Amino acid sequence: MIAAMETVAAIYHLKSTAHEIASRATDLALEQSVEMPAEAIHSDYVRRHTLAKVADITEIDSGTFRVTLNLAAATTGFETGQLMNMLFGNCSLQDDVTLVDAEFPGSLLSAFSGPRFGVAGIRRRLGVFDRALTCTALKPQGLAPAELATLCATFARAGVDVIKDDHGLADQSYAPFVARVRACQQALGIVARETGHRACYAPSLSGGPKVLREQIKIVDGEGVPMVLAAPMVMGLPVFQEFVAELLRVPVLAHPALSGALRIAPPLFYGKLFRLFGADAVIFPNFGGRFSFTRAICGSLVSAARAPLGECLAALPVPAGGMSIERVPEMIEAYGLDTMLLIGGALLSAGDALLTRSQAFVTTVAASSHDRAQVD
Amino acid sequence: MIAAMETVAAIYHLKSTAHEIASRATDLALEQSVEMPAEAIHSDYVRRHTLAKVADITEIDSGTFRVTLNLAAATTGFETGQLMNMLFGNCSLQDDVTLVDAEFPGSLLSAFSGPRFGVAGIRRRLGVFDRALTCTALKPQGLAPAELATLCATFARAGVDVIKDDHGLADQSYAPFVARVRACQQALGIVARETGHRACYAPSLSGGPKVLREQIKIVDGEGVPMVLAAPMVMGLPVFQEFVAELLRVPVLAHPALSGALRIAPPLFYGKLFRLFGADAVIFPNFGGRFSFTRAICGSLVSAARAPLGECLAALPVPAGGMSIERVPEMIEAYGLDTMLLIGGALLSAGDALLTRSQAFVTTVAASSHDRAQVD
Repeated sequence: MIAAMETVAAIYHLKSTAHEIASRATDLALEQSVEMPAEAIHSDYVRRHTLAKVADITEIDSGTFRVTLNLAAATTGFETGQLMNMLFGNCSLQDDVTLVDAEFPGSLLSAFSGPRFGVAGIRRRLGVFDRALTCTALKPQGLAPAELATLCATFARAGVDVIKDDHGLADQSYAPFVARVRACQQALGIVARETGHRACYAPSLSGGPKVLREQIKIVDGEGVPMVLAAPMVMGLPVFQEFVAELLRVPVLAHPALSGALRIAPPLFYGKLFRLFGADAVIFPNFGGRFSFTRAICGSLVSAARAPLGECLAALPVPAGGMSIERVPEMIEAYGLDTMLLIGGALLSAGDALLTRSQAFVTTVAASSHDRAQVD
Repeated sequence: MIAAMETVAAIYHLKSTAHEIASRATDLALEQSVEMPAEAIHSDYVRRHTLAKVADITEIDSGTFRVTLNLAAATTGFETGQLMNMLFGNCSLQDDVTLVDAEFPGSLLSAFSGPRFGVAGIRRRLGVFDRALTCTALKPQGLAPAELATLCATFARAGVDVIKDDHGLADQSYAPFVARVRACQQALGIVARETGHRACYAPSLSGGPKVLREQIKIVDGEGVPMVLAAPMVMGLPVFQEFVAELLRVPVLAHPALSGALRIAPPLFYGKLFRLFGADAVIFPNFGGRFSFTRAICGSLVSAARAPLGECLAALPVPAGGMSIERVPEMIEAYGLDTMLLIGGALLSAGDALLTRSQAFVTTVAASSHDRAQVD
């Protein structure tokens, strides 16, 4: 008796004609597994255990088909990079293919630790349990550490929960990582002693493995409570490994450099970033500067919270051109287990930064209260 | 006197109307630098030193504009991930933007070592100076190390120059990295003693930093002469760092997972992969299973060879559904400083693998000779 091949169900949208779709789907199965013509396969083991199979073809629109491939789980090596390679390596180079979803077997899910804190862990860290969370960003890049620290202090005085670096803050000469982390942590300590509210600073990690290790040491040494990382800028395997093995604090994942990949956002951010360890996933909210629709955002948020093996739920963080006026709509759309990120719209206030940041905080609290009444 | 801001010229194609393009270009400059509204910038330093400037707008087609931004070089931190972030981080999430080219100042170019071997170094390693080079691939995944080694030996007997792992060979249970590297190296040693031709094996590196370090140790220990890596699967900053600091052999870069990024292939593979250390760049040839046009392939190859600071030229490696019949056309299109990669079309020969591989080798030699006569 031969054990059934354990599989990843990878779901694609393929542009094709009805006449050609069967052979196009078979070609995709070959491309994403053995990468050679079927007639060139002489091994029975390969045909049974590594060759991907077309499990389903459904026309969803004129000229677009939903194709499900069963990929052998063993081909992923149960490892981040190779999983991505199997799902979308070569076919990223084929314009007619979009990766829309994937279902993973238990063996694969258990190879990844997923979020170490998730929604509940971030709430415990912040001591906030009954409302949506607030987040803002330190920018623009070009400010010196002392200027960033001043912004940080103002946001903290306003009662913002999480203050993250702009994802463009790396290790530039005008604000080196260590200098700005120390300045911001110190500023938040002063505000905490004054007001009793200690905001959570999340500096942006960036660089190659050597620099990242140094940055993580600084994070540990300075007692930094959270970090920001862009998994596609950093590299997904590095993100996964460093989060699982080195980082002791929650990580917010930023979508920079990932947007054009033709991987559906609910799968990419809601499942894959989460599987690889993101405690919170920042995504471009509908109606802002980016092109995600409300439906895509809704699916992304659902995916971040849906059962996924033993993975904790990841915290959704809608962002990108948001405003205080839209807070009620966002809480209505996403519920309370959400962190709202408003950056530029607060910073535009200039001298009124404190007041506008306070308005953000009180609006989130009030809208959360309203929403809780409804629930 | 204020020193002029040293800049990266980043060139995009933007979809827009003539009426809106000026403000759309300004928005892109904000998005890719300060990521906040211009009126929210209160720092003179930021306006002068980190805010990107729109340098040029040219309509290239109805509804498509070529927009050049001058990005401050300092904002890149002179580091791989942050350079990608500045070029295409957030705007990867905006459907109307394609990154088509970039020009780098000397300070940025000199921060990267580029190829350590390049075309000339690979030729020296192979001892081949007067013809196009030949490359094939070990596949399908699912074969055991001994089976891969048998294939390897046959290709070597046929006189193929470089035998690379399929990029889908990672560290799977059926052919773990160390076992297949040893088996293939041993097989090539035996053939070398028999025939005097020592083919060059290039195993595929994959995994997180910890596993990559182990694989590189194995490469060193076993005397492996070349490696394959997919920079976007591995993560660009890891690729760059490990190539510059750990790898002692040439690296072939594979485009897996990079195809959908809306970054023009000549820039991505010909300039950026090369800048980050690729000695050879594998790309999907026109007329194969992928969607690159002949013009794109030509520009990519030109970019890989064009002056780029002190960077050595990278070896272009057209691939993807190629056949022996197309060898003359490929040599005609790309010239002799090219390595032709044919995998599946050789493996399809089954029992005639040796003969067909020999035909590949002799055809490349003959076509190279013809081409050299013309030159």
